[in-house]
Amino acid sequence: MNRLHPLLKEPVQPADWREGLDRPQALLDYVSEDPEPLMDLAHRPIVSARQFDRAKLFQLCRLAAHYETTPALMQLPLTGKILINAFYEPSTRTRLSFESAWHRLGGDVMSITDPATTGIAKGESLADVAEMFNHYGDVVVLRDSNEQAVYEMLNSLRIPILNAGNGIDEHPTQALADLFALFKWRPELMDDEPKGQGIRIGIIGVPNRMRTVRSLLILLSLIAPAISEVVIICDVEQPFDGDQREELEEKGLRLRASKSLNNELPQLDVVYINSIAWVGDTYEKLGEELRLSAHSPLKDSAIILHPLARGEELATDLDDTEHNWYFAQARGAVYIRMALLTSVVHRVHRVIDTPEQQA
Amino acid sequence: MNRLHPLLKEPVQPADWREGLDRPQALLDYVSEDPEPLMDLAHRPIVSARQFDRAKLFQLCRLAAHYETTPALMQLPLTGKILINAFYEPSTRTRLSFESAWHRLGGDVMSITDPATTGIAKGESLADVAEMFNHYGDVVVLRDSNEQAVYEMLNSLRIPILNAGNGIDEHPTQALADLFALFKWRPELMDDEPKGQGIRIGIIGVPNRMRTVRSLLILLSLIAPAISEVVIICDVEQPFDGDQREELEEKGLRLRASKSLNNELPQLDVVYINSIAWVGDTYEKLGEELRLSAHSPLKDSAIILHPLARGEELATDLDDTEHNWYFAQARGAVYIRMALLTSVVHRVHRVIDTPEQQA
Amino acid sequence: MNRLHPLLKEPVQPADWREGLDRPQALLDYVSEDPEPLMDLAHRPIVSARQFDRAKLFQLCRLAAHYETTPALMQLPLTGKILINAFYEPSTRTRLSFESAWHRLGGDVMSITDPATTGIAKGESLADVAEMFNHYGDVVVLRDSNEQAVYEMLNSLRIPILNAGNGIDEHPTQALADLFALFKWRPELMDDEPKGQGIRIGIIGVPNRMRTVRSLLILLSLIAPAISEVVIICDVEQPFDGDQREELEEKGLRLRASKSLNNELPQLDVVYINSIAWVGDTYEKLGEELRLSAHSPLKDSAIILHPLARGEELATDLDDTEHNWYFAQARGAVYIRMALLTSVVHRVHRVIDTPEQQA
Repeated sequence: MNRLHPLLKEPVQPADWREGLDRPQALLDYVSEDPEPLMDLAHRPIVSARQFDRAKLFQLCRLAAHYETTPALMQLPLTGKILINAFYEPSTRTRLSFESAWHRLGGDVMSITDPATTGIAKGESLADVAEMFNHYGDVVVLRDSNEQAVYEMLNSLRIPILNAGNGIDEHPTQALADLFALFKWRPELMDDEPKGQGIRIGIIGVPNRMRTVRSLLILLSLIAPAISEVVIICDVEQPFDGDQREELEEKGLRLRASKSLNNELPQLDVVYINSIAWVGDTYEKLGEELRLSAHSPLKDSAIILHPLARGEELATDLDDTEHNWYFAQARGAVYIRMALLTSVVHRVHRVIDTPEQQA
Repeated sequence: MNRLHPLLKEPVQPADWREGLDRPQALLDYVSEDPEPLMDLAHRPIVSARQFDRAKLFQLCRLAAHYETTPALMQLPLTGKILINAFYEPSTRTRLSFESAWHRLGGDVMSITDPATTGIAKGESLADVAEMFNHYGDVVVLRDSNEQAVYEMLNSLRIPILNAGNGIDEHPTQALADLFALFKWRPELMDDEPKGQGIRIGIIGVPNRMRTVRSLLILLSLIAPAISEVVIICDVEQPFDGDQREELEEKGLRLRASKSLNNELPQLDVVYINSIAWVGDTYEKLGEELRLSAHSPLKDSAIILHPLARGEELATDLDDTEHNWYFAQARGAVYIRMALLTSVVHRVHRVIDTPEQQA
Repeated sequence: MNRLHPLLKEPVQPADWREGLDRPQALLDYVSEDPEPLMDLAHRPIVSARQFDRAKLFQLCRLAAHYETTPALMQLPLTGKILINAFYEPSTRTRLSFESAWHRLGGDVMSITDPATTGIAKGESLADVAEMFNHYGDVVVLRDSNEQAVYEMLNSLRIPILNAGNGIDEHPTQALADLFALFKWRPELMDDEPKGQGIRIGIIGVPNRMRTVRSLLILLSLIAPAISEVVIICDVEQPFDGDQREELEEKGLRLRASKSLNNELPQLDVVYINSIAWVGDTYEKLGEELRLSAHSPLKDSAIILHPLARGEELATDLDDTEHNWYFAQARGAVYIRMALLTSVVHRVHRVIDTPEQQA
């Protein structure tokens, strides 16, 4: 009689990285290396997706692909550097993603995860907290439910800060991870003059209430020529903020709102769905209609993106299908953050050749 | 007039490591090096004490003794590796023990110590959390009051997980620390054909309600030939689960239950006592009877083990006696975890010679 | 139309370190290097400011200035060493300051920030916790609202412990940071036979209720010849503990109490102000009188020190004036802790030449 649980009889099965590396390698081959746009990110605070242009976006994704295809770095570019992870709004996934990225680059991390243990609780101003951070670390990553907090810190910060979610405003590094996943799927989305009529992207979510959607739309506007249409799918009458739609359309994005997921699905090449977490909303009433499962009328070739963590809106029966790109998206989130962190601390020259090669 | 506190007048007195190293050195000399059993642990989840056989147990203890006798490692075998310490049930001792072990091997640690700050709180499934861990780290250490949690994670994990306590089920790395302490005390317990009638071990605790006791008994069954009897001392009518006793006796362990500590003590070579922490139990009624102190009728040569933290069941007047092996046991807990971690991440070849010497 | 926030248009402006380094460099040049007083700190617990003499104080500040003027250490003296940061009383500033100091020296950190997640909560004794720390780390930093906790740990500790605040008793490393700021301002305060009549220091705070003030006064007594007078400014009838004043005066410090801040300010060279955080006190009644702002009648050459975090007692309109030495004081707090940590773990010989050069 063997009382050993069946799951304990074998080693865990590491992912087949050889196979998994085809796609970042293809991206790497598709984009020419150009360190200049990344050098320009040195010492910059990264708060809004508006801060990226096409060259920065593509080179960040290229460097992320370089990291993803390089199992062990020859040289750790951030040895001796300290990341201050200030998560005043609870999070695990984003916090660990940044910590993992920083550690893989060789740096050390100091975390603040419980607002109750901080001086903030005692009424210290964010400007003073930022002044403290200047002396204690090299980069700050901030999540705060108050969208102005990052700007209050910027008034006295002299080290770069990365916005890891400021209220319902923006979440730019998540949007970078979304685009990185898209480019690994189809590198030709980066073409200056794309062939064909472009892909149709459906976004299940509310642009004026979800920071992930807001930042994603801004980055999608950078590849507007490759997109035939973005369909916003939700049950809200006014899904856009003030001039949010106008800004995106100015940049060439074609937007349309729809309330019927299943009517749209058969025409969508990419389906982006967010966990439905906003306050005071009506999701519950919508029932099954804003949910995806293996029974949804998806195009055979369609891919699904989701920033995770997920709730019932994304059924697990999709996990083992070809539609599942959300797990690859999650893996890439570490590499794209490695690329961004390397850039803002001015260490690009340690991982790729640059004209200056300055220390 | 000197206002300086007397305790501040001298440096702290480091333990006399020379003396303390005799015992791990003796163990090291007693067991022949054989990396194969450790190589077989590579990429394995470690959830149950049932996963060890004699060879694995002895070689893990040998490698632990190697670490204990080597003050500074020539090469740090886990540089660049990330441990995810997920303690959903509060703990300091075990968490810090794993962190210390990992750091001493050169790796970095990411900790989750407050369930309230995690996606778990938002209803994320453990399978999804595990999928996240795959991308962010190299090993997971999990403590969870739900004994099934580790198995739910295993459904999607592709990196090794170590069980640091799953409900009342198991705590295998604590049991390894217990055996490591026993072998440093008497290496001949590892003999295939022990001389004499074997030692008598008393366990003050309830096998079906204490994970430390459950795992310890399974490991003791691997050295059944060296044990004349294990006496379970408690005031519970049914101290064993379903077929728990049958499983142990099949493996050759001689078990007896007793309710009288002081009647048993004069015959015990090893006394294992646990902090009495189970819920809804009757410990309070037992009064002084299940407590050990310098006044207990211990054999002169008897040693006491305790997984710590302790309560009133283990009096501090024993700390300075020869019976005190619980402090040595606590020190060894770091080294045995170093040995296990080195094995599951497949880095044994970096610290001892192996036939393959593969990277 | 550009929707990018103005603060995001430029890189952050790093401080002009060249300029900032003049002062630590001047201190470095002013004091002759002598490793002996630092070697004497090896393996010592640091609980009280009474443990320092002039030579130790000056050499610690000298080593701190060495660190401040050395952007990247050639050799990381604490590689492989583990700091246990035990903050049983909430703190961010002091905790991160120690973590940053340790990381910059190359070591790893294990933190306990939430008492609820610890064995302490289960009733474990501090002596047992200290015994655990012996096995898991190389140095302990402790903050505890119970002033006896550090001494309870010392009963069983065999690794150095640093007091990061024990109740209302002491906070010696903060006082070291205060003196380091003073010496960078005027290195001649360290003279054996100072010229002139000495500086006048005002301390806004209550010596018998504020640990920062208590430790500061003890260190100031070491440079009593350079101080004409220390004026204690508060609205408390008995600002001193038992023999606190007697001890300081024995050491040569001239003390005077005053209740009128604005009457004293025009004569003060140094104004030390603390955040007013004690319980059940009368600060609220004092209104504006114990506050500093750009409108206060400060001497033109006066400097202000504040241990931070601050409340309303220190107006932000002083931040951009020449009086502001509290930000420099905060930056120096990391370097002075680096110097102290290097000394207690006996690694001075790795950063400066010593006669022994022992490992």
